[in-house]
Amino acid sequence: MNVVFWGKEFLRLKESLEKAMKGHEVIIADPEDGAGALSSAEILVVRPVTVDGKMLRGAPSLRLVQQWGAGAEGIDLDACTERGVFACNVPSIGTGNAEGVAEIAFLHMLLLAKRFFRAQEKLREGKVYTPPGVALWGKKACVIGLGNVGRSIAARMKAFGMNVVGVNRTSPSDCSGWGIDSYVPLDKIGEGVKGARFVVVSLALGPGTEGIIGDSVFRAMERDGFFINVARGPVVDRQALEKALDGGLIAGAGLDVLWEEPHRPDDPLLTNPKVVITPHIGGVNDASFEGVLGFIAGNVERIAGGKTPLSCLNEKEMGRGRP
Amino acid sequence: MNVVFWGKEFLRLKESLEKAMKGHEVIIADPEDGAGALSSAEILVVRPVTVDGKMLRGAPSLRLVQQWGAGAEGIDLDACTERGVFACNVPSIGTGNAEGVAEIAFLHMLLLAKRFFRAQEKLREGKVYTPPGVALWGKKACVIGLGNVGRSIAARMKAFGMNVVGVNRTSPSDCSGWGIDSYVPLDKIGEGVKGARFVVVSLALGPGTEGIIGDSVFRAMERDGFFINVARGPVVDRQALEKALDGGLIAGAGLDVLWEEPHRPDDPLLTNPKVVITPHIGGVNDASFEGVLGFIAGNVERIAGGKTPLSCLNEKEMGRGRP
Repeated sequence: MNVVFWGKEFLRLKESLEKAMKGHEVIIADPEDGAGALSSAEILVVRPVTVDGKMLRGAPSLRLVQQWGAGAEGIDLDACTERGVFACNVPSIGTGNAEGVAEIAFLHMLLLAKRFFRAQEKLREGKVYTPPGVALWGKKACVIGLGNVGRSIAARMKAFGMNVVGVNRTSPSDCSGWGIDSYVPLDKIGEGVKGARFVVVSLALGPGTEGIIGDSVFRAMERDGFFINVARGPVVDRQALEKALDGGLIAGAGLDVLWEEPHRPDDPLLTNPKVVITPHIGGVNDASFEGVLGFIAGNVERIAGGKTPLSCLNEKEMGRGRP
Repeated sequence: MNVVFWGKEFLRLKESLEKAMKGHEVIIADPEDGAGALSSAEILVVRPVTVDGKMLRGAPSLRLVQQWGAGAEGIDLDACTERGVFACNVPSIGTGNAEGVAEIAFLHMLLLAKRFFRAQEKLREGKVYTPPGVALWGKKACVIGLGNVGRSIAARMKAFGMNVVGVNRTSPSDCSGWGIDSYVPLDKIGEGVKGARFVVVSLALGPGTEGIIGDSVFRAMERDGFFINVARGPVVDRQALEKALDGGLIAGAGLDVLWEEPHRPDDPLLTNPKVVITPHIGGVNDASFEGVLGFIAGNVERIAGGKTPLSCLNEKEMGRGRP
């Protein structure tokens, strides 16, 4: 198969990709100048980018659009189905992906709560036992979105002795295994975050969730609260977040995702002292790399062998369209 | 009572200390020039410093040496008993102390595993999805010292999906509640850390543990391993650690404690790119502050009321010496 990896970020993985896709042709394409690669692509592997009808028309041999990771909100599933192209993601749990994102959520919570940058200043001044931080232990935390990532976060929060409120569109059939103390439906989100010292967003991006984290959420949080986003930038209303930070509605924000990725190096949030940012590294770790790569290699083989790929997002629709 | 807080670090807590010790005289003394304060002290509250016979002779009215926190290794208990002075610490669990130290251990593990400083560089360069980090999930971790802090760390590691080996002087009577997968006695420490990607030390400092973490420990750890110390600096052989870092035996170290505290601002470890340091802030948080202060205020009242103080380290010996 002709397997096109869409994005320059894949360049540094070249050797591993070729090893995993042995027997297939691996091409790493720069989206700025990728029309040529697209025209012969049979499998297209993408990071979170837009894959729409226009793009698909440039790829007449395409049989599978494969998300590198779980969040496939950029793929136009209808357009794929229309052209007879499978669209797949990689399940996040058990591959190091959801677990890694949960770990990044904790890194952000701890960086903010322990005032890490201030601690580094104090260290340089030769000071000790300062600055005083905030214990996670005993605090109210709210996790918005209880998919694989959200549940991984909630379970870890529980072990840290936090009081965990889970906010989700659908009610968990069995809360006990999710490690949450209470559940609030997504349409009452303000109730869920009320008085929370830590709010972590792990909500899939979609038409119903774009900008869902806005003014009312920040108003309902505890003053001195910390807001963490490990989902996708656009689930948060950027202006509302900036206003909440500037106006002192919350004490800080930790963001592993931004509204534009790659971000502009001159984005003012990068130098906002109340904000900690990491460059979308939640799912980027040794375990998830092996897990994701192995899963995708399996799907390439399945397509090559004429089988339906796994974790297919338009499987039913594709089935209906078949002769 | 005349309550002397020993150390300039207490100055910024003055208001809270006075409020908690209402009805008593609160004095904050600079150890450099504290002889006057000592001479009238009835209760002496200390950070981890040396309290020996010589110091006690300068405090003829003293009735209690009260550690601010759990680790009271600096207090000469025999000298206290000899002079009829109670020596107490503050139990670490349930006061936010052990929990806070466990949180700092995780901050260090995550900073190292996720290559936080490198991520900040990448961010400034406008890069995304890089650097790749290490998942805690699925890794072997070894916790050395299973007191309140060690057990708090082990329980959190378990929730992060780590494979946890506990090393302790005495065998746990019931491992299951401690969240460890296996137990290795302290005299076989090399066996416990063998192949561990993360090693966290949470061992009380004493004659038997000074310098116990040496060359053989670093040699037994996984290459690419991360070493974290949240106990006391001197449990680690500093030269061995520096050699292990320089020689590539381990990938990095996270230290909340140093050999000298306060440290010298020109300590070369502060600028070693493989090392992350925080200024002994593990136990310094809102919850532990309230917890420790409340506990100490209670002991002040007990002494004032002629009762034996709580969490007394020389209670038996003091009892024997009584008429």
